[in-house]
Amino acid sequence: MNGGVSPVRLGVLGCGTVGSAFVRLVQDGAAAIEARTGLRLEVARVGVRNLSADRDVELGPGVLTRDTHAIVTDPAIDVVVETIGGIEPARHLVLDALAAGKPVVTANKELVANCGSELFGAAERAGVDLQFEAAVAGGIPLVRVLRESLVGEPIHRIIGIVNGTTNFILTKMTSEGADYGDVLAEAQRLGYAEADPTSDVEGFDAGAKAAIMATIAFGARVVAGDVYSEGIAHITPSDIDAAGRMGHVIKLLAIVERVDGEIAVRVHPAMVPAEHPLASVRDSFNAVFVQGAAVGDLMLYGRGAGGLPTASALVGDTIAAAADLRRGTHRGLGVLADLPLRPIDETDSAFYVQLDVDDRPGVLAEVAGLFGRHGVSIRSMEQEGRGDEARLMFITHEAREADMQSTLRDLRHLAPVRRVGNRIRVIES
Amino acid sequence: MNGGVSPVRLGVLGCGTVGSAFVRLVQDGAAAIEARTGLRLEVARVGVRNLSADRDVELGPGVLTRDTHAIVTDPAIDVVVETIGGIEPARHLVLDALAAGKPVVTANKELVANCGSELFGAAERAGVDLQFEAAVAGGIPLVRVLRESLVGEPIHRIIGIVNGTTNFILTKMTSEGADYGDVLAEAQRLGYAEADPTSDVEGFDAGAKAAIMATIAFGARVVAGDVYSEGIAHITPSDIDAAGRMGHVIKLLAIVERVDGEIAVRVHPAMVPAEHPLASVRDSFNAVFVQGAAVGDLMLYGRGAGGLPTASALVGDTIAAAADLRRGTHRGLGVLADLPLRPIDETDSAFYVQLDVDDRPGVLAEVAGLFGRHGVSIRSMEQEGRGDEARLMFITHEAREADMQSTLRDLRHLAPVRRVGNRIRVIES
Repeated sequence: MNGGVSPVRLGVLGCGTVGSAFVRLVQDGAAAIEARTGLRLEVARVGVRNLSADRDVELGPGVLTRDTHAIVTDPAIDVVVETIGGIEPARHLVLDALAAGKPVVTANKELVANCGSELFGAAERAGVDLQFEAAVAGGIPLVRVLRESLVGEPIHRIIGIVNGTTNFILTKMTSEGADYGDVLAEAQRLGYAEADPTSDVEGFDAGAKAAIMATIAFGARVVAGDVYSEGIAHITPSDIDAAGRMGHVIKLLAIVERVDGEIAVRVHPAMVPAEHPLASVRDSFNAVFVQGAAVGDLMLYGRGAGGLPTASALVGDTIAAAADLRRGTHRGLGVLADLPLRPIDETDSAFYVQLDVDDRPGVLAEVAGLFGRHGVSIRSMEQEGRGDEARLMFITHEAREADMQSTLRDLRHLAPVRRVGNRIRVIES
Repeated sequence: MNGGVSPVRLGVLGCGTVGSAFVRLVQDGAAAIEARTGLRLEVARVGVRNLSADRDVELGPGVLTRDTHAIVTDPAIDVVVETIGGIEPARHLVLDALAAGKPVVTANKELVANCGSELFGAAERAGVDLQFEAAVAGGIPLVRVLRESLVGEPIHRIIGIVNGTTNFILTKMTSEGADYGDVLAEAQRLGYAEADPTSDVEGFDAGAKAAIMATIAFGARVVAGDVYSEGIAHITPSDIDAAGRMGHVIKLLAIVERVDGEIAVRVHPAMVPAEHPLASVRDSFNAVFVQGAAVGDLMLYGRGAGGLPTASALVGDTIAAAADLRRGTHRGLGVLADLPLRPIDETDSAFYVQLDVDDRPGVLAEVAGLFGRHGVSIRSMEQEGRGDEARLMFITHEAREADMQSTLRDLRHLAPVRRVGNRIRVIES
């Protein structure tokens, strides 16, 4: 089978953790991939910033180059695989590759979440594939499932645990009753969290993934900046403890949903019932829970980050892009519509609310009356402690975000309320 | 966007639970699917055995026909969707449709598991798609993920809960401590189990799915008859209780794995650690756990049966087949190899074994000695009860199946052993 088959020549941009893992997978797997698919993948050029950096890959002479632009315009390169990350220079390189008629495979979440429309349009005009499985949830094949298997499915909602760092931190806080700060420091020591953890713990990383999920699930133009984000830094062991006593665990969720013709896209911590499939997603694992009108509940679970899982997704995409190229076809993203985005104020959710209060008769009635005046209905209440330690914990029925916010504002000025603790959204099963 | 687009005319074979759900999904979703994909799906003909049967679908005059063969040869039909089930007449109809140059979408597990090679060959010769997502695990997009996302992934093993009936029964037995027979009767009353439950409870249904999984995961020719099957009818509340005390749950698993260049494919009950993602797959839900060298652990979870989830998979496949047809391309299954099948006797597994024994000093030494002489090493032992109720429960390290079988044979003849209970395989996390 060898001999006659002309290779698919890959131009790889970047050779860090993901790029070098990709190069090794292609080299080690080339024979098996050719036996199965008839495609002979060959790493022809690898573009890097620094030729002499230590890399755990073996490349022939002349494969490494600093001239990344020469790769994307080289007529001898068939498919471009982008692993640089960030917006520029990745954006220009991808656009130039597409303009040169080369299919592009990318692992670049920022790029797709911020410039998706521009890139999809360029790919469509060039008549080539733009594949980005590795940009969302690493090795989990979410993008292909949403783009192909579920393209005809009326999807109501997607709830994802799509950030491994925060899931690791919340899992540790839950199993050890530890403080956020201590666990974050441990995660940084172990390499699960970056020195500057802002993008992870404030929900921006998950927000970029939510934008991509909304785009492909609903065929809507949604960018990272459209996503409302709350992080996990304010979550306390007391919140986690209260969640546990009520049969819930706290997770950082990326939620995209369709409500009355509008799209709502947000990231925030939420209490998830212990029997929900997302509740048992532990440590740095990711999972995405899809609710469709016909398919029902569907969940994809796996490694959302890391060199090898991410590179595995790049390999699958590269084979698909190469096969489409050889067949003279391409797969687009279909028509993207400008669907209205629902502001966070207008979304509905159940809430958990913690209040430190004076411990005397009549307080509950005062507090409950205030909830009621804002149209927020209480589903359950529990008192913890007595006297100076008295704390009320409420779970509401579904309430409008704006109503909940005004309830909290007024609670802060209610005489018997000494402190308004966290309010955390609650997901029904 | 309407007007100019010529419809993709679908010929649907069969209009039972799945077929009628498919017709409704296509009719209700046509506008959204066209807006997203540019494809106008139209149910042009529906072939049934009985024209006057009650069906929950609305079809124009002349759409229903008893002449199924006329559908697959009708030049006006673009794509054939087969929901009849069983080998014949489905096999001939599918082969004739392919020979007539029509892509085929099928939900037929028996057909693909028994005649896959023949059908894939016919599709390849005709240069059209043969799509069969709905044939394995209903709405779970396993086939597309294995065929496309993971086609380059070195997959070690797949462990699936792919039969909803048995998972429902085992879940009930676990939560209620009930007998197999009682729960089966309840499942039959609720419509979760058929009047003749043999195919489900003996593992044959899961076995057919295992054959398909092995075919697409390893590119190997595996048919239903190659699969070793053990059912769940012998599982007792005592087994489930013992599993629980050791932190496990009992599940019926379909396992396909690659061992030293051979393929092992089997279905049997097994104890799964409570913290394993498969352990929390409850009721009639299905899930498939994939272990790959690069992607790591991956799990797909969802509705493995039922009209709507299965029809959802058919819709996804129909859109893919129609898109490929319009692009003048097709997606094959690649090269299938004749990989050697490893006999069950030569597979390795950890085992749980229950023995009723005489309660006197020296018995454990005798029993342990016998295990040892067969090369089966004991990982843990626990005694339950004293005197006439004395029971020993062992978990072994990984042992060769044949060695375990000869151990059990000899245990039955060991004087202090009054009864050899079930031996159940144990999955490590």
